[in-house]
Amino acid sequence: MEVSVSFSLCRLSKSHSQFSSDSFTFLRNWKPPSISRQNSIALTPIRVSNDDFILEDVPHLTHFLPDLPSYPNPLQKSQAYSVVKRTFVSPEDVVAENVVIQKEGPRGVHFRRTGPREKVYFKPEEVRACIVTCGGLCPGINTVIREIVFGLNNMYGVQDILGIEGGYKGFYSKNTMMLTPKVVSDIHKRGGTFLLTSRGGHDTHKIVDNIEDRGINQVYIIGGDGTHKGAALIYEEVKRRGLQVAVAGIPKTIDNDIAVIDKSFGFDTAVEEAQRAIDAAHVEVESVENGVGIVKLMGRYSGFIAMYATLASRDVDCCLIPESPFYFEGRGGLFEFIEQRLKENRHLVIVVAEGAGQEYVAAEVNAEDKKDASGNKLLLDVGPWLSDKIKDHFTMSQKMTVNMKYIDPTYMIRAIPSNASDNIYCTLLAHGAVHGAMAGYTGFTVGPVNSKQAYIPIARVTERQNTVKLTDRMWARLLASTDQPSFVASDQETVEKEIMQI
Amino acid sequence: MEVSVSFSLCRLSKSHSQFSSDSFTFLRNWKPPSISRQNSIALTPIRVSNDDFILEDVPHLTHFLPDLPSYPNPLQKSQAYSVVKRTFVSPEDVVAENVVIQKEGPRGVHFRRTGPREKVYFKPEEVRACIVTCGGLCPGINTVIREIVFGLNNMYGVQDILGIEGGYKGFYSKNTMMLTPKVVSDIHKRGGTFLLTSRGGHDTHKIVDNIEDRGINQVYIIGGDGTHKGAALIYEEVKRRGLQVAVAGIPKTIDNDIAVIDKSFGFDTAVEEAQRAIDAAHVEVESVENGVGIVKLMGRYSGFIAMYATLASRDVDCCLIPESPFYFEGRGGLFEFIEQRLKENRHLVIVVAEGAGQEYVAAEVNAEDKKDASGNKLLLDVGPWLSDKIKDHFTMSQKMTVNMKYIDPTYMIRAIPSNASDNIYCTLLAHGAVHGAMAGYTGFTVGPVNSKQAYIPIARVTERQNTVKLTDRMWARLLASTDQPSFVASDQETVEKEIMQI
Amino acid sequence: MEVSVSFSLCRLSKSHSQFSSDSFTFLRNWKPPSISRQNSIALTPIRVSNDDFILEDVPHLTHFLPDLPSYPNPLQKSQAYSVVKRTFVSPEDVVAENVVIQKEGPRGVHFRRTGPREKVYFKPEEVRACIVTCGGLCPGINTVIREIVFGLNNMYGVQDILGIEGGYKGFYSKNTMMLTPKVVSDIHKRGGTFLLTSRGGHDTHKIVDNIEDRGINQVYIIGGDGTHKGAALIYEEVKRRGLQVAVAGIPKTIDNDIAVIDKSFGFDTAVEEAQRAIDAAHVEVESVENGVGIVKLMGRYSGFIAMYATLASRDVDCCLIPESPFYFEGRGGLFEFIEQRLKENRHLVIVVAEGAGQEYVAAEVNAEDKKDASGNKLLLDVGPWLSDKIKDHFTMSQKMTVNMKYIDPTYMIRAIPSNASDNIYCTLLAHGAVHGAMAGYTGFTVGPVNSKQAYIPIARVTERQNTVKLTDRMWARLLASTDQPSFVASDQETVEKEIMQI
Amino acid sequence: MEVSVSFSLCRLSKSHSQFSSDSFTFLRNWKPPSISRQNSIALTPIRVSNDDFILEDVPHLTHFLPDLPSYPNPLQKSQAYSVVKRTFVSPEDVVAENVVIQKEGPRGVHFRRTGPREKVYFKPEEVRACIVTCGGLCPGINTVIREIVFGLNNMYGVQDILGIEGGYKGFYSKNTMMLTPKVVSDIHKRGGTFLLTSRGGHDTHKIVDNIEDRGINQVYIIGGDGTHKGAALIYEEVKRRGLQVAVAGIPKTIDNDIAVIDKSFGFDTAVEEAQRAIDAAHVEVESVENGVGIVKLMGRYSGFIAMYATLASRDVDCCLIPESPFYFEGRGGLFEFIEQRLKENRHLVIVVAEGAGQEYVAAEVNAEDKKDASGNKLLLDVGPWLSDKIKDHFTMSQKMTVNMKYIDPTYMIRAIPSNASDNIYCTLLAHGAVHGAMAGYTGFTVGPVNSKQAYIPIARVTERQNTVKLTDRMWARLLASTDQPSFVASDQETVEKEIMQI
Repeated sequence: MEVSVSFSLCRLSKSHSQFSSDSFTFLRNWKPPSISRQNSIALTPIRVSNDDFILEDVPHLTHFLPDLPSYPNPLQKSQAYSVVKRTFVSPEDVVAENVVIQKEGPRGVHFRRTGPREKVYFKPEEVRACIVTCGGLCPGINTVIREIVFGLNNMYGVQDILGIEGGYKGFYSKNTMMLTPKVVSDIHKRGGTFLLTSRGGHDTHKIVDNIEDRGINQVYIIGGDGTHKGAALIYEEVKRRGLQVAVAGIPKTIDNDIAVIDKSFGFDTAVEEAQRAIDAAHVEVESVENGVGIVKLMGRYSGFIAMYATLASRDVDCCLIPESPFYFEGRGGLFEFIEQRLKENRHLVIVVAEGAGQEYVAAEVNAEDKKDASGNKLLLDVGPWLSDKIKDHFTMSQKMTVNMKYIDPTYMIRAIPSNASDNIYCTLLAHGAVHGAMAGYTGFTVGPVNSKQAYIPIARVTERQNTVKLTDRMWARLLASTDQPSFVASDQETVEKEIMQI
Repeated sequence: MEVSVSFSLCRLSKSHSQFSSDSFTFLRNWKPPSISRQNSIALTPIRVSNDDFILEDVPHLTHFLPDLPSYPNPLQKSQAYSVVKRTFVSPEDVVAENVVIQKEGPRGVHFRRTGPREKVYFKPEEVRACIVTCGGLCPGINTVIREIVFGLNNMYGVQDILGIEGGYKGFYSKNTMMLTPKVVSDIHKRGGTFLLTSRGGHDTHKIVDNIEDRGINQVYIIGGDGTHKGAALIYEEVKRRGLQVAVAGIPKTIDNDIAVIDKSFGFDTAVEEAQRAIDAAHVEVESVENGVGIVKLMGRYSGFIAMYATLASRDVDCCLIPESPFYFEGRGGLFEFIEQRLKENRHLVIVVAEGAGQEYVAAEVNAEDKKDASGNKLLLDVGPWLSDKIKDHFTMSQKMTVNMKYIDPTYMIRAIPSNASDNIYCTLLAHGAVHGAMAGYTGFTVGPVNSKQAYIPIARVTERQNTVKLTDRMWARLLASTDQPSFVASDQETVEKEIMQI
Repeated sequence: MEVSVSFSLCRLSKSHSQFSSDSFTFLRNWKPPSISRQNSIALTPIRVSNDDFILEDVPHLTHFLPDLPSYPNPLQKSQAYSVVKRTFVSPEDVVAENVVIQKEGPRGVHFRRTGPREKVYFKPEEVRACIVTCGGLCPGINTVIREIVFGLNNMYGVQDILGIEGGYKGFYSKNTMMLTPKVVSDIHKRGGTFLLTSRGGHDTHKIVDNIEDRGINQVYIIGGDGTHKGAALIYEEVKRRGLQVAVAGIPKTIDNDIAVIDKSFGFDTAVEEAQRAIDAAHVEVESVENGVGIVKLMGRYSGFIAMYATLASRDVDCCLIPESPFYFEGRGGLFEFIEQRLKENRHLVIVVAEGAGQEYVAAEVNAEDKKDASGNKLLLDVGPWLSDKIKDHFTMSQKMTVNMKYIDPTYMIRAIPSNASDNIYCTLLAHGAVHGAMAGYTGFTVGPVNSKQAYIPIARVTERQNTVKLTDRMWARLLASTDQPSFVASDQETVEKEIMQI
Repeated sequence: MEVSVSFSLCRLSKSHSQFSSDSFTFLRNWKPPSISRQNSIALTPIRVSNDDFILEDVPHLTHFLPDLPSYPNPLQKSQAYSVVKRTFVSPEDVVAENVVIQKEGPRGVHFRRTGPREKVYFKPEEVRACIVTCGGLCPGINTVIREIVFGLNNMYGVQDILGIEGGYKGFYSKNTMMLTPKVVSDIHKRGGTFLLTSRGGHDTHKIVDNIEDRGINQVYIIGGDGTHKGAALIYEEVKRRGLQVAVAGIPKTIDNDIAVIDKSFGFDTAVEEAQRAIDAAHVEVESVENGVGIVKLMGRYSGFIAMYATLASRDVDCCLIPESPFYFEGRGGLFEFIEQRLKENRHLVIVVAEGAGQEYVAAEVNAEDKKDASGNKLLLDVGPWLSDKIKDHFTMSQKMTVNMKYIDPTYMIRAIPSNASDNIYCTLLAHGAVHGAMAGYTGFTVGPVNSKQAYIPIARVTERQNTVKLTDRMWARLLASTDQPSFVASDQETVEKEIMQI
């Protein structure tokens, strides 16, 4: 048995694991050496491996506050939970990262299961929680806010919950909002974020000063990978100061580009809504000669929305995503494909993720590199560029009139309320975060792994983004369904490189 | 190692598994003894266990046609699939039934992963497939039909696909419909089933005669547990006659009451739509004094739609499901709860699954036991009965006027087209079935297990239904969210019994 | 010229109309004799006829308070209205009831046009208005409430607006709600009525006592014909007591059965939503053998929703409405028609308005006559009755299995928010009422006549209901579109009688 | 009495109208002198005035084919129409253009009422009709196509109906499509146009040659004012050649900019859908600091969609339309208003019609004048321009960060199917056109005038466009509702000029 604090994944042979008989008992009692002055520690998952069974664990308040008292979980007196077979999640329960396995393969990585624990490390009446939302909009944020409030209040009797307004910057503002069940009761029926949002503005020291000043001891942070980096820094600083403050992240990204978790909240809703734009494009181009519809969908670095909307709608002829380089001219190129479809069907619909083809746009527009306040590279708008490119090609080179129909439904997708299945998903996320914080976990994020909610080390969602694997069956399914070129000929190396890496 | 043909789950100690070194190689080559004249054999899963690692396998044509030739899978020449890292699923790939595990716990049950195999047992040009849909409507049936056709045609080049119209009975009809990609191209945009459906009418011998007569060699059957029992019988008879016919089930149930799989197709769509009825009830009762809204939702034996719609909408005061007995009078009873909510809020909304409270309705209505053509017990309509019961109680006993608002949105829910996420789900199901049949598997059904598609022995979906576990966290979540009585006081035994069984 | 207080419509020959030169000047200055102790007077429109040009006028406060001072309309200082060509409606502006005319035909009946008048009879700071909603729900009520509040506040600077909760009964309650623009700002996005509603409970004296006690001087009453009868009684009693209280009705009926006006608010929304139920029925019956879908829609005495939903959806085979008697057996009967459609198409959809076929249901159910609190006859539920009737006929007499699919979407239709066009309509209604009350008109209702808003004597909307004319082109259009039997053979007399009456 | 073929509107004094006793009998029998060699004649309405009662009539085939035989209308044998009180519209029935009148005012302009006539000028079996759709998409085109086909087929028994594909150009193509009720039965459930559309391509001689060659004798043309000019030319040429060909226009414009008629089909649907984009913009800007949402809606020369969507949604702070010039800088300017709203509410939403502010865009972009194939001036895209303009102003001059959220939902609005009320409207239009053509009218268009369908001279819809009157109450209502600047200060003259003109 070994506790690894590095990224290297150690599979120890049985002979080395002298504690195998009760490694979990060990795990429960175990407190890691108070290492880690370095800033990056929160980004490093705690790995406990035994044989080929690996647990990637999340920090706990007792790791740096070893004498913290605990209390019986008030849920055990709850009528609702009293009939539950096991009111409390067993500390041994873990969720496997790999569910498609081979008998003789290694058992792989596991995460802690979410859920209420027998002991909590906060007296409900002493909890002062706060919630903050950062980054862009996504269907379901309000449901998460609502359910953190209801979860804390209904399940644990917490009364004191603050809303930090306008993202991380809101910590420096004097105004905060009291969040009660009554105040947030209906907010899930409306899109957007009740707490306002912004990009950037993260100053770890000022934020933690503010947390101390206000007496906040639970911090719920809803945001993407940039926001989670900020959350990790807050956790680090909190630990450095030895504060009893639990820091919980809830991953939000409309692009579904967060690693480890099955999919991000709001994603189903977004794909559903994206279909409306595709359908409109389809109707437009069906009604004219040589109609070329272009629908730009979200997806800076990953084309999940574009891919799923294409698969769901079945009205798309070609889907361009950042992960799959494409080219225009020559055999197997986009122009050839468009020409052919126009000949066969008189129209076609192209879905393009916002991050696709950036190398072309950049080359032609010759714009300097810009970043937004979240540190995301400012993308050049591929939609109108692609539309002009295609129009010009066919008008000039081919002397052929094409009817371009360009739709950018981005804000119409982001701003809608979440659908029923996302609503329930958001509830599970929020309650998972609440149970975790009450149980003393900190510096963690939460999300479904193979459909079961788990506590995930923040590093795992910040160290790399989830992207569409071109070598995966889902992309092949898309290629089969649209029968579009794979654009591989010209770019064999990229794919091969990717294959190598996996 | 042992092959178990009984239901009892054998976990053999290591010492017994002399073949452990290469049980999967064995598995691949293994042909079971041609046992089983008994009718029930298809209902018995093939269990291959080794240590505590159990595979519940599905039959293969070579089990009774050992000399069947195989061919290279045409997908390996497909442009779309050529870039896939591994075009073909490894025969060792299995999906774990339990993803929440404990390190020292048993490794548990696994199912074969779906996906294309390196070898197929049909020449595409010799395939004559048929599709049949049975039982009630459910969003997504047409997407499944469409994708079986597209899957067979696009991926394998199969041209000859018949639609059997009107359920099992359709086999006896002279009419069949040729299904081509063009014919089914847009059917997923419409609810219902393109192939018509009916209940009952299953006559195994006549059906298999018909299959032989028409030269059909792949049978895709979309239906619920009753339908799958029929599919198992067809498989048995096909095997008895030694026909090279693959029989694949695709599980359909709007109630989500099919065991093993994560959830059934159309379920998300149904829950989404159910919210509309709940919202209408809520608006109605909010607008009057003492408004009592009752929304009856589907769920004969399982209250999943009612439970999820309640959790998603957050506008429900009480959710009654078949699994949770309830009572009217006295402390902790429904009348007391209603009275209290009316006092506090002047209105309430009750969601009742169609199978809830059947014992009361039956007692009062004194109707004889009837069954529908699928063999389902005809339920007495709990909705109007409950509405009258409540109205009478408050009018008579309490001299209090209540405004009853009863909504039964059943058909409006069943008949809508599937949403985007169900659409993609249906695609995976359909393609999984197609890959399975082409690869020679038979007598199987297909579905997501912990979010990964797997081949599942039919017995596992017919032997018992999926129901809401009262002792599970999701039901506790609902109780916490509605704050409704748990009705346990009067029925402690039931719950205890249930706890015992798990 | 003659002022007629009776219902008889007098067309005077030119020779009698000695004031013809300036009848409108006259009209403006005219005060009617303080006649009318009889209760019914408010129900009698004030008719001013001249030649064949008739004005049906509404009462004015100065009719019984001749010395009431007037003030300049504050709108003349409004920036928004300052650019309007004529800020104020000319007192001579009237709206013609008949817009399809013949040159030589009589000029017919006219109503006063709505809109702001140059003089108002209330100082804004002295206005205390109240709003009450009565009867059943209908999309758009909240928009009307919102726009009365915004209209009074934004246009006239009125600050003191009370919400009477729960219909007429609310006048006796101690609780009222202050209605400010802020409070009602978003209520139009939600169905139902923000002010609650109830049926009946009208006690004229108690209500007017209450109006006096609270110092209310403008009463806005949103309701149907029963409610308007109540409004007329309030107006009468107010007049008898000589109070400066303007009473304005806003006609509400989801059935579109209010006479004179083009259509009632919420009607378009209701028809739109009704299509969803029809579509569901259609999908259900298309998917089975011998499917018979029955959709019950609102319409106690008039089949407008059923007729328009049938025309809009084009998926209905037969539409049954209260105005058109039908029969089951024999040639040209419903059973024959159903049988024929099942033979041709294997399915059909019937839309039945709730008031259709009541004579049959009553005869068979033998129920006594009941009325609801609004005095509406309690109808027996034709939907399930019709469904059983058809099922029994085909099962028993024809030995034919029919698949009945019955949908009652009533509450799902009533409870939705109004669509965009109804929203704008509701704004016009509300503003018309506000302008009218401020200008001193009273005992009036408001609504569009040939697409222009007009002030209409209450009697005109209470004396008879709007019904579908079987002898009208719209019904013929429906018959042509469904090709259903006209059922006239057996009921020639009814139609002939109706023809006579018109 | 006088027949006027000029635009000047003659009100003759009584003394001149010696035929007044029976001008309509006259009218019915009257055949105009076969004047009109000039090309513009179809653009000239036929005015028959008598006293102050004016009829603007449409041409009839007998005007140039005086000996054309007529036949009894087959509708008189129709079961559906047999119960109609008057199956046929009286030739004297006319629809008044002004319904808000004054007793002593002139009786004004009237149009012929639509509907079936006692005599038709075509034998059904000899009719060969064609339908063509031109210009941009609009919800409801497919319903109009469907109902022309059903109207001709069901009501008149016409079997021979051709679909001309792709606008006027389609006449030169060899391909046409047979339109049967079966083919078009479900097309109204889908947006776009089943017949494809294009702009321009009108060559009168080639089209009429083609009409002759194919033996077409009824031409239904669905399009905007440009298309109607083309229809008028076709009518002229047909008349010049003395062909028995009826030419009927059906006005289509999503901008609602067609004069005379109440509103154009698809307009309600478009406004409804536009609200979705406004709502998304509102959610987006509510969720950030200094959020400025800009929604660009259709409206090249008229701001109806922008105005109605603003009135319906109530979430818009400022609505900019082509008819109302605006300015940015200084008191009462747009920048001042934005700044103020941001201070008060932290966000605002601006709706801008595509034709608004073109003078600014043109000045800054310095682009040359372009026209599209329909001859419409190509507008510069005001949306992104305005968004940049505002962003630059606040960033540069004000050193203030604003969060711009720009939405262009144009194609998503145009491409949806029509809602229920538009569906019924489209039916009335289509049937009106069919009755008119069968009755021998030609060179006409059709549409609702004060909610009654009428035949309208084509000139009336081509000679000028419908625009929002700034001096009208609806615009004042909008200004009152948004409280935006009227921008009049700087542009007093424009408004005054407009006032003068009215």
